[in-house]
Amino acid sequence: MTTHFYTASSLDGFIATSDHSLDWLFSSDIDLDGPMAYPGFVDAIGAIVMGASTYEWLLAHSDEPWPYPQPTWVMTHRDLAVIEGADIRFTQGDVARVHDEMTRASNGKDLWVVGGGELAGQFADAGLLDEVWVQYAPVTLGSGAPLLPRRLDLELVDLQRNRDFVCTRYRVLRPE
Amino acid sequence: MTTHFYTASSLDGFIATSDHSLDWLFSSDIDLDGPMAYPGFVDAIGAIVMGASTYEWLLAHSDEPWPYPQPTWVMTHRDLAVIEGADIRFTQGDVARVHDEMTRASNGKDLWVVGGGELAGQFADAGLLDEVWVQYAPVTLGSGAPLLPRRLDLELVDLQRNRDFVCTRYRVLRPE
Repeated sequence: MTTHFYTASSLDGFIATSDHSLDWLFSSDIDLDGPMAYPGFVDAIGAIVMGASTYEWLLAHSDEPWPYPQPTWVMTHRDLAVIEGADIRFTQGDVARVHDEMTRASNGKDLWVVGGGELAGQFADAGLLDEVWVQYAPVTLGSGAPLLPRRLDLELVDLQRNRDFVCTRYRVLRPE
Repeated sequence: MTTHFYTASSLDGFIATSDHSLDWLFSSDIDLDGPMAYPGFVDAIGAIVMGASTYEWLLAHSDEPWPYPQPTWVMTHRDLAVIEGADIRFTQGDVARVHDEMTRASNGKDLWVVGGGELAGQFADAGLLDEVWVQYAPVTLGSGAPLLPRRLDLELVDLQRNRDFVCTRYRVLRPE
């Protein structure tokens, strides 16, 4: 069972603009049946975790009430809107405990850290992040929300072009 | 004749650590005879431009007195050490004028903006940056010198793996 941080990024390492826009991302072209695209990735996922900002972005921008059938943990210190019929658990504190709860709920499937970068960094700090997948859109943003604000060594395990995107997959190397 | 920004970067868009270290870069493996590697790139270059920090890094870290036979412009507001026998022109101000001087000195070969990111951004601002090549090393740094602090749209023209590195080549798209 593997814990993935799977995300899109600008070439200069931002996952959203400073005002939380992803317009730069959705104006780029990807083949959803192509290599490392989202549908194939999310099929292998049994539980999901995200930060409060990512959750609020989804609430504001998703076409459907809630896109994920998987049990989802939302790390938040704030009161957030509840979505009827969605399996969402608001929580805070230790990511190791959350990782443990996710593992038990995932039916042996993989775990996905949706974002943001700081949350992925907390999983890495705890030694609980196994893979980083970055789809680079063909833009630079110059500022915004950082991809993964940590010092990490990784190993490149896959690289594919998918239309406009450079799709990368890395294994996180842990200190010996 | 094409003006290139050719650089290495961490996955999260930093071209050096905050204390100017490139140790993370040189500990990664690349085949110098492989795709998009430095020797093949620099063969096509007729003139070079860099910022003062890049110049000082080269002075402090290069094994040889000066690595480039090409005429080189160094953008600086400070007095910098002169290297005996090297074709180096200290300058400041308008990058369009520098670009014009470089073009005349390059014997029809291409131009290379070595770094940093802000200087590459100034060439982009002036509509004088044609291509961006980024070799991603398999690390995140979390902070440091930014890759290219601008909002730019690009087009992916080449993608190759070279051992540890994801080697990308983009064309800069200019507003219509």
